[in-house]
Amino acid sequence: MKKKNSVFIATSLDGFIADKNGGIDWLDTIPEINTVDSGYAEFTSKIDAMVMGRATFETVCGFDMDWPYEKPVFVASTKLDRIPEAYAGKAFLLKGTLVEMLEEIYRQGYSQLYIDGGRLIQSFLKEDLIDEMVITIIPVLLGSGAPLFGEVSEMLRFECKKSVRYVDAIVQNHFVRKRDV
Amino acid sequence: MKKKNSVFIATSLDGFIADKNGGIDWLDTIPEINTVDSGYAEFTSKIDAMVMGRATFETVCGFDMDWPYEKPVFVASTKLDRIPEAYAGKAFLLKGTLVEMLEEIYRQGYSQLYIDGGRLIQSFLKEDLIDEMVITIIPVLLGSGAPLFGEVSEMLRFECKKSVRYVDAIVQNHFVRKRDV
Repeated sequence: MKKKNSVFIATSLDGFIADKNGGIDWLDTIPEINTVDSGYAEFTSKIDAMVMGRATFETVCGFDMDWPYEKPVFVASTKLDRIPEAYAGKAFLLKGTLVEMLEEIYRQGYSQLYIDGGRLIQSFLKEDLIDEMVITIIPVLLGSGAPLFGEVSEMLRFECKKSVRYVDAIVQNHFVRKRDV
Repeated sequence: MKKKNSVFIATSLDGFIADKNGGIDWLDTIPEINTVDSGYAEFTSKIDAMVMGRATFETVCGFDMDWPYEKPVFVASTKLDRIPEAYAGKAFLLKGTLVEMLEEIYRQGYSQLYIDGGRLIQSFLKEDLIDEMVITIIPVLLGSGAPLFGEVSEMLRFECKKSVRYVDAIVQNHFVRKRDV
């Protein structure tokens, strides 16, 4: 199967993935969203591994809940020495450049990857390594915070291949990278 | 009729309305959009006047084309002394605070307003004076430029009431301000 790097993420209407204090309370401004299927299960059924940055990994580890992922999670980090014992067999440390990390993941047999975490997504986009993005817009203006998007090396073209609205308030747009053939 | 301030604007996927040099060439990355009706005529049929900032007004004046607006255009500016002769009867200068300008516009009998220009839209949003936004996402990542959104005084909630895709690439989302009742 063709290798694919995908993003599935929620942003505010002004493009932030966390508010200026790192908070995500605003994700719950429309609680009805939790009563509907907004495609996460379908999305994750099509991926075979996750790749996240250290900050996202540590955030998830800090949640008071069971480990939420069924697929292997690769943690991209230059700082971490090893994955904590509690996550052995679930999360795996990766070092090197993005391309080196991807090669290691592919070598282990995974090719449909879910890229998560703001800084890691930005790094992937800067090297034009994202193929698909499912972006759910929670329609609030925050005014400041951590933006989903950052610098890119050159203009990157996508196409919106699908748009779905939920609970008459939220919109989820599916963008696919359009590469010159 | 209930007063309404509306925005109809295109942004890049990363939320810019102009690139870092002020350019808008990227709007033409999907030229097929010019072959379809993307709702501008319907939108403008429902407004009775436009309000734009000086910078936008001067940009439009600089285009090598006839004056493109059928409705009266109010130009919000602290710097301009008067509207150039060539635009007499078409464009009208407004001074004062946003609320004072709106009162003057309402006094003249206009109430369905199309607010245009990045800085003016940001000013309106900062004072929570926008009721509806139709945002067409041209799916390119620019990496930098003039953002549509800026600071807000408090979190503002909207609801996405409609989403339409065009030419299998572009998505237009309609957001309506949700105010506590």
